[in-house]
Amino acid sequence: MKILKTVDEVRSQVKAWKKEGLSVGLVPTMGYLHEGHQSLIRKSVEQNDRTVVSVFVNPMQFGPTEDLESYPRDLDADAKLCETTGADVIFHPEPEEMYKPGFCSYVNMTGLPDALCGLTRPVHFKGVCTVVNKLFNIVQPDRAYFGQKDAQQLAIIMRMVIDLNMDIEIVGCPIIREADGLAKSSRNIYLKPEERQAAVILSKSVKLGQQMIADGERDAKKIVAAMKDLIGSEPLADIDYVEMVDMDTMKSIDIVEGHVLCAMAVRFGKARLIDNFILDMNK
Amino acid sequence: MKILKTVDEVRSQVKAWKKEGLSVGLVPTMGYLHEGHQSLIRKSVEQNDRTVVSVFVNPMQFGPTEDLESYPRDLDADAKLCETTGADVIFHPEPEEMYKPGFCSYVNMTGLPDALCGLTRPVHFKGVCTVVNKLFNIVQPDRAYFGQKDAQQLAIIMRMVIDLNMDIEIVGCPIIREADGLAKSSRNIYLKPEERQAAVILSKSVKLGQQMIADGERDAKKIVAAMKDLIGSEPLADIDYVEMVDMDTMKSIDIVEGHVLCAMAVRFGKARLIDNFILDMNK
Repeated sequence: MKILKTVDEVRSQVKAWKKEGLSVGLVPTMGYLHEGHQSLIRKSVEQNDRTVVSVFVNPMQFGPTEDLESYPRDLDADAKLCETTGADVIFHPEPEEMYKPGFCSYVNMTGLPDALCGLTRPVHFKGVCTVVNKLFNIVQPDRAYFGQKDAQQLAIIMRMVIDLNMDIEIVGCPIIREADGLAKSSRNIYLKPEERQAAVILSKSVKLGQQMIADGERDAKKIVAAMKDLIGSEPLADIDYVEMVDMDTMKSIDIVEGHVLCAMAVRFGKARLIDNFILDMNK
Repeated sequence: MKILKTVDEVRSQVKAWKKEGLSVGLVPTMGYLHEGHQSLIRKSVEQNDRTVVSVFVNPMQFGPTEDLESYPRDLDADAKLCETTGADVIFHPEPEEMYKPGFCSYVNMTGLPDALCGLTRPVHFKGVCTVVNKLFNIVQPDRAYFGQKDAQQLAIIMRMVIDLNMDIEIVGCPIIREADGLAKSSRNIYLKPEERQAAVILSKSVKLGQQMIADGERDAKKIVAAMKDLIGSEPLADIDYVEMVDMDTMKSIDIVEGHVLCAMAVRFGKARLIDNFILDMNK
């Protein structure tokens, strides 16, 4: 496995592969890889001849008061995980390689970013769209892999690819959880031991919401209220939002029908954690 | 030569060409083709194995009070010109093919659009960036051709391609003029006979500016003032702007040095015409 630092190196590697008729999968990440990322890499290795994992903590998607500086990094561990999982290349550029002097372009959208995480992270999805667009143009993969844990991000990337006619298949992969249910996240290392224990309330509230729907409840407000009550019962939890929206438009819904996303963001000390479940009620 | 109406048709045609190892040039236009466009097509035919001309009057780059509805269209004449010039495909989509239900993504940039034409046409370059980005993704050309007449557009597209790592060479081509100097433009048909005669003042002012610089003048304000005086001597001319800017940043300059764009937009009756000259003072 190779670690490449420049756009030109990645481009010529991918061109060489394409000349041989090989398919290419891309797994965009910010590094500090865990089993969630690993499941994406594994899926890509399974579906493509070659897999590129990008490891780039993208400054453009962090707000001025967010955790850009403290975001955890460990390239050696990432490289080991990628290699053992079967990736062929890590693309690990410096910010200066991705954002050259005079850089001023961006990709964004109306509507989808103006909900959920976009409300408290106003520049976040503009940064995500822009960097993912760049990575897609650099690697030109056949398929790209994103976790369902960042459900709004997944919906936004899918929309971008359709709207801008990018010839790439977006593959969404299920949330990977710890044994007690906590969704795997690089930000879990911010949790103090008591916060770590408290954070399990998120996956419990996911289960509660799913159970209520399985039991026939269709009133979105009632489900959200019950989930908020449960999370609120945990003194260390500070709710940013719990919401039920349409998965394709990110607009709030009153009745559980169609393609539904129930998503939450909750703070535990320094960590802002997200969790969700998605249901296609048409199926 | 084929006329294709859907993204899928263009994509499979280009894929077939690429499989044969053929290079592809793209000439994006709004149709009503004249010798200016023809020079772009000719250049593309010269430099590539296959040439696609897109003919699409892009609603997204017109403001609400602009000439979207009245913009001239003549696909039959366009097809003849493309065929005789050696193009292989015209891509002529309907607006509904380019902007599907739920469309909400866009490409834009800060800085470069906030000058010259961007000041009086605030949504214009967002529409241009977005549609050109889409066309690049649909056709995936090796090279794309743009006229220097739309100098700000050329600078913006070049910037977009660099910033978003699009693997495409942008080729800028010189302004093509009528015998009396008027820059060729689809919008020239808006001109009444007396306005058509009056409009030659634009190319005369271009010559004046170039001559002043050749004679050693380096004070941008003096050159612009002299050009404005000349244009103002023509009663039918209504100046939108005459400006000297840095070609790479579109920022106003005081002294003529570096990569310089001197650009103007002037109304004659219903027609808003543009003209310019570019000088690289380092050469």
